[in-house]
Amino acid sequence: MEFVAIVEALALLEYGVFILICGHARGRHGVPAPATTGNAAFERAFRVQMNTLEQLVIFLPGLLLFALYASAPWAAALGLVFILGRALYARSYLTDPARRGPGFGITLLANGALLLGGLIGAIVELL
Amino acid sequence: MEFVAIVEALALLEYGVFILICGHARGRHGVPAPATTGNAAFERAFRVQMNTLEQLVIFLPGLLLFALYASAPWAAALGLVFILGRALYARSYLTDPARRGPGFGITLLANGALLLGGLIGAIVELL
Amino acid sequence: MEFVAIVEALALLEYGVFILICGHARGRHGVPAPATTGNAAFERAFRVQMNTLEQLVIFLPGLLLFALYASAPWAAALGLVFILGRALYARSYLTDPARRGPGFGITLLANGALLLGGLIGAIVELL
Repeated sequence: MEFVAIVEALALLEYGVFILICGHARGRHGVPAPATTGNAAFERAFRVQMNTLEQLVIFLPGLLLFALYASAPWAAALGLVFILGRALYARSYLTDPARRGPGFGITLLANGALLLGGLIGAIVELL
Repeated sequence: MEFVAIVEALALLEYGVFILICGHARGRHGVPAPATTGNAAFERAFRVQMNTLEQLVIFLPGLLLFALYASAPWAAALGLVFILGRALYARSYLTDPARRGPGFGITLLANGALLLGGLIGAIVELL
Repeated sequence: MEFVAIVEALALLEYGVFILICGHARGRHGVPAPATTGNAAFERAFRVQMNTLEQLVIFLPGLLLFALYASAPWAAALGLVFILGRALYARSYLTDPARRGPGFGITLLANGALLLGGLIGAIVELL
């Protein structure tokens, strides 16, 4: 389970980097709080952070469910795929939102596999 | 605890469906990323997703705390109430935001019961 | 671990209070759903809630990782620092967004300490 914990912490560190990028863009492009719109570059950084938050809410419990009811090593592996997919997503979104597809798809697949694998594993455990 | 894990996974699957509905609305109503405003139907789908995210952040730990420190079967039951309340909330919000009250109230009650029950259970455990 | 569970529940209760403040501001300042902009006082309350959500997604797993792999009592203590920092953040942001710095910094430090401490603890456990 330590590997799973490390992958979980790394995913959160990556998210922390997205928060810092977004905060930096707020200052650099002059978007005063509480506004979250008004500059396209800031809005991209904000959406990278928000979309990652939206996905983490599935990822974090999904990772644990998969580790507990399916396989801890595979949970860690799928977690790494999620982290790499998010890095690709952020890189392409910040350049051009239209190119966010592949990175988004990779994290969606990893997330779906973790959640469904965890759900199926828990159901099998019950039978 | 398997029942609790299954209810947790089902709540996340429901949230995943709200994400898909929101993504579909983005395409259908022509709201290009990173915008999150500009079309009322998209904004409703976006708020259903976001509000569910806001509630899940209480629900997921609350469910676990209640299962650990109060009662696992009752945690699963309250979790199902949350899921059904969210479905009602989404259905009514997507039709007419003014009607979101009952569904919102049901999930708020389930969430409050899970969190306060878990908190009281943990305090009692300590005494 | 009961202390950690209690701190976790208290942080979620604080977040619940921010949700209620935001909902109250929506009604009081006449911002009909699904809008999240249009009135500065409502936008501040909304950002307090959203930013706390953004931070909780790191805080909740970080608290557990730190409690499991570093120290449960210190996790609870850092968790209390987070809760107090958030209260300060909310108070100052609702008055004047420009003054949100100190409260934000305190929660960021607590969050960083929990996450990095948990990560290092898990790595040490592995060695």
